[in-house]
Amino acid sequence: MDLVALEEIRRLKHRYLRCVDLKLWDEFADVFTEEAVAEYDTPLLGKTLRLEGRDAIIGYMRANLGPDKISTHTAGCPEIDVDGERATGIWSLDDTIIIPEHRLLIRGAAFYHDAYRRGADGQWRVERTGHRRTYEYTVSLDDMPSLKFTTSQ
Amino acid sequence: MDLVALEEIRRLKHRYLRCVDLKLWDEFADVFTEEAVAEYDTPLLGKTLRLEGRDAIIGYMRANLGPDKISTHTAGCPEIDVDGERATGIWSLDDTIIIPEHRLLIRGAAFYHDAYRRGADGQWRVERTGHRRTYEYTVSLDDMPSLKFTTSQ
Amino acid sequence: MDLVALEEIRRLKHRYLRCVDLKLWDEFADVFTEEAVAEYDTPLLGKTLRLEGRDAIIGYMRANLGPDKISTHTAGCPEIDVDGERATGIWSLDDTIIIPEHRLLIRGAAFYHDAYRRGADGQWRVERTGHRRTYEYTVSLDDMPSLKFTTSQ
Repeated sequence: MDLVALEEIRRLKHRYLRCVDLKLWDEFADVFTEEAVAEYDTPLLGKTLRLEGRDAIIGYMRANLGPDKISTHTAGCPEIDVDGERATGIWSLDDTIIIPEHRLLIRGAAFYHDAYRRGADGQWRVERTGHRRTYEYTVSLDDMPSLKFTTSQ
Repeated sequence: MDLVALEEIRRLKHRYLRCVDLKLWDEFADVFTEEAVAEYDTPLLGKTLRLEGRDAIIGYMRANLGPDKISTHTAGCPEIDVDGERATGIWSLDDTIIIPEHRLLIRGAAFYHDAYRRGADGQWRVERTGHRRTYEYTVSLDDMPSLKFTTSQ
Repeated sequence: MDLVALEEIRRLKHRYLRCVDLKLWDEFADVFTEEAVAEYDTPLLGKTLRLEGRDAIIGYMRANLGPDKISTHTAGCPEIDVDGERATGIWSLDDTIIIPEHRLLIRGAAFYHDAYRRGADGQWRVERTGHRRTYEYTVSLDDMPSLKFTTSQ
């Protein structure tokens, strides 16, 4: 069992998740290989969102998860298999997106299915990521008239 | 410190949790020893639910967590002690059960107290699992009239 | 990579989180060095709460997270760097505080930035902890008139 690779891959995914929720798109880019593919199950858009290449992934995030949206991606429970310079991983996800301006909250859960590759520089990166939802709902913040934000960035 | 056993036991529990939320009952069965005992704190039923033996545990789950229910079990924060072929583990749990047909959402938190055993085949399995709740509440989805599911499996 | 230190530090933080949610203040004290400093981003109080010394931290928790409050601190995604007897760690946090008596629920997310030190007794302890919120909101339970607690400790 390659214990060091397991630690490195977990940390890679933790960085991925932190960069999304803090909108650190430059740091986020370094998580992916140049040819990385992302496929996010996005029922709200009525489809699976497929993004080909690191630039497309970062560009989409930058355009669609701007400062007007709050997101939390609580992921855990990794099941990682390492095979030399390649690895796969399953992760559970519980995510919430809040768009205060539209008074909208989107909540759901999913399982990620990722593939990772260790590059010539020794760093693991995400080569493929995607998730499939167990559920997702939307609800208007107007259903909770007393709700007040005390802070958001 | 038996680092490999720690990885294997974490992965076992991660598989346990994924199988529950994806309702993969055949795969779930392999997580347990044949004599496994589960004791879930279930205040909604007014009692601790005690299930003796792998077949009873799987049978209960199959009957009570069917496709009409959405569940998410977000667990983490393991505190695992390994002693040869036996181990114990504490995990935090934050769980949500949604029953769309009954317009009901059940949310709560708990701490699991598990015992694990490594079998003759070298695989760790759950010998005993149980949790004790810190809280649990029920709420009707009718309190959130705008709530809409965009997907659920 | 100091794999044993990584395991020990994760477990330390897991114990920290469990002690908070179960209000085990005596056990919680042992998580910290005597000179530990905590800085919690607390927008509801309009400030960062700064607590200097283990006694101040424990005293604050004991006084402010009593049996009248339910708390869940779901933390994960550690990014830990070990340097000999010192280490730093980033963790994501999703927390909920419920005060049934005031019909109040406070929900938010944050990232912890911690520092750890290994003492002469070989035990890792928290030397500095703090978090910065991505968001926080308050909502009255009166917005969910059907909400019923089935249990809370």
